[in-house]
Amino acid sequence: MYKLVLIRHGESTWNLENRFTGWTDVDLTPTGVEQAKTSGRLLKEAGYDFDIAYTSVLKRAVWTLWHCLDQMDRTWLPVRHSWRLNERHYGALQGLNKADMAKQYGDEQVLIWRRSYDTPPPALEATDPRSERGDRRYAGLKDGEVPLTECLKDTVARVLPFWNDTIAPTIKSGQRVLIAAHGNSIRALVKYLDNIADDAIVGVNIPNGIPLVYELDADLKPIKSYYLGDPEAAAKAAAAVAAQGKA
Amino acid sequence: MYKLVLIRHGESTWNLENRFTGWTDVDLTPTGVEQAKTSGRLLKEAGYDFDIAYTSVLKRAVWTLWHCLDQMDRTWLPVRHSWRLNERHYGALQGLNKADMAKQYGDEQVLIWRRSYDTPPPALEATDPRSERGDRRYAGLKDGEVPLTECLKDTVARVLPFWNDTIAPTIKSGQRVLIAAHGNSIRALVKYLDNIADDAIVGVNIPNGIPLVYELDADLKPIKSYYLGDPEAAAKAAAAVAAQGKA
Repeated sequence: MYKLVLIRHGESTWNLENRFTGWTDVDLTPTGVEQAKTSGRLLKEAGYDFDIAYTSVLKRAVWTLWHCLDQMDRTWLPVRHSWRLNERHYGALQGLNKADMAKQYGDEQVLIWRRSYDTPPPALEATDPRSERGDRRYAGLKDGEVPLTECLKDTVARVLPFWNDTIAPTIKSGQRVLIAAHGNSIRALVKYLDNIADDAIVGVNIPNGIPLVYELDADLKPIKSYYLGDPEAAAKAAAAVAAQGKA
Repeated sequence: MYKLVLIRHGESTWNLENRFTGWTDVDLTPTGVEQAKTSGRLLKEAGYDFDIAYTSVLKRAVWTLWHCLDQMDRTWLPVRHSWRLNERHYGALQGLNKADMAKQYGDEQVLIWRRSYDTPPPALEATDPRSERGDRRYAGLKDGEVPLTECLKDTVARVLPFWNDTIAPTIKSGQRVLIAAHGNSIRALVKYLDNIADDAIVGVNIPNGIPLVYELDADLKPIKSYYLGDPEAAAKAAAAVAAQGKA
């Protein structure tokens, strides 16, 4: 009935440095740029086309989308940005090295911070220079909408209104939708679409820069989903994401 | 009262090859990318900021905007595309070398094609593979809206509705507007804003990749306008544009 394509941004500078990123606005690495271009070429070769694209307000997702659209000769497509598609906010961990934290606090604690459904990492202080205070991007948000930390449950709660109010009606109107977003905003969507239990979503890892296709029925229930390109490469990349938080 | 910034795209592959481009969708050169980045840095250093950006559906303008926004840390700004900001359609000349045409038809004929206000170049045949037939970008346009050639008068006629219906009300609403477009769609706006006579607009040349600032009063009448950065460099670049059509 419908096809929806999700892409996690290509490798970022902090993916490369194995640091918790969250809402920190870091660039793609040259590898990340290549991943984004490759995803665009894959989509074009497989005959995909789109009418509108959604992305976050973070440049690693935006640039991934731009490179992908360029490879598809679709730089002119309408693009809509929403903070609701941002990465999960990583609170006071933002900027810290995942393996260092694992050495200091243990693999298990880091896995809880990374993958617990409802336990958020320690919150940023509102006065922390890493907070979003004074950032124009978030100036229009209501009190309490800009997080100081998030667990995945929090991310789901702020992604779903954008899905329900904007993306889902757009898909149902017949427009072909591409979403370029982040590991955890995509996990939030995957959890919702595939109706994955709170304790099972921990095992779902989204690789960087590989298009994830959902075929959806008239009610937007998934018929099937798959990564474009080499399935073995996608599985290997997802396993590498899972291993990032180990000492 | 208001500030509006216009940027002609950076150098394109066909600028470099001195070919008539029009609606042909060519890439920026590495120099063009640098010009776009420089324009973003200039704007940021001079304290400019924007709420929305407009561009055409041609990638040399889109990429110029994207690089410019990135340098300003504004990749998340809303961007709206319109075919009405496209370059003037160059008809059957699209793809041909300007100096070759000057050798063949004389400098004067080429100047008429390039700069006559109301004499269009020879039209493309509707069946010409260079025409926009079947291009998704233009699929929603009415019969007769997709040109087969244009003089500047034609370009003015299709740019102004977008100015009047969309850009002008946006500026008056207090939003700060950046427009990344093309030599002739910008000349169309400049002609209108500065109320330049039909026979005087021939002398106006827009350099690639240099921000052109308009300060506008409450009725959007220009108070003054100027290029950001080194005025001598801007004048030299405009003179180089003027000289392109000579044998």
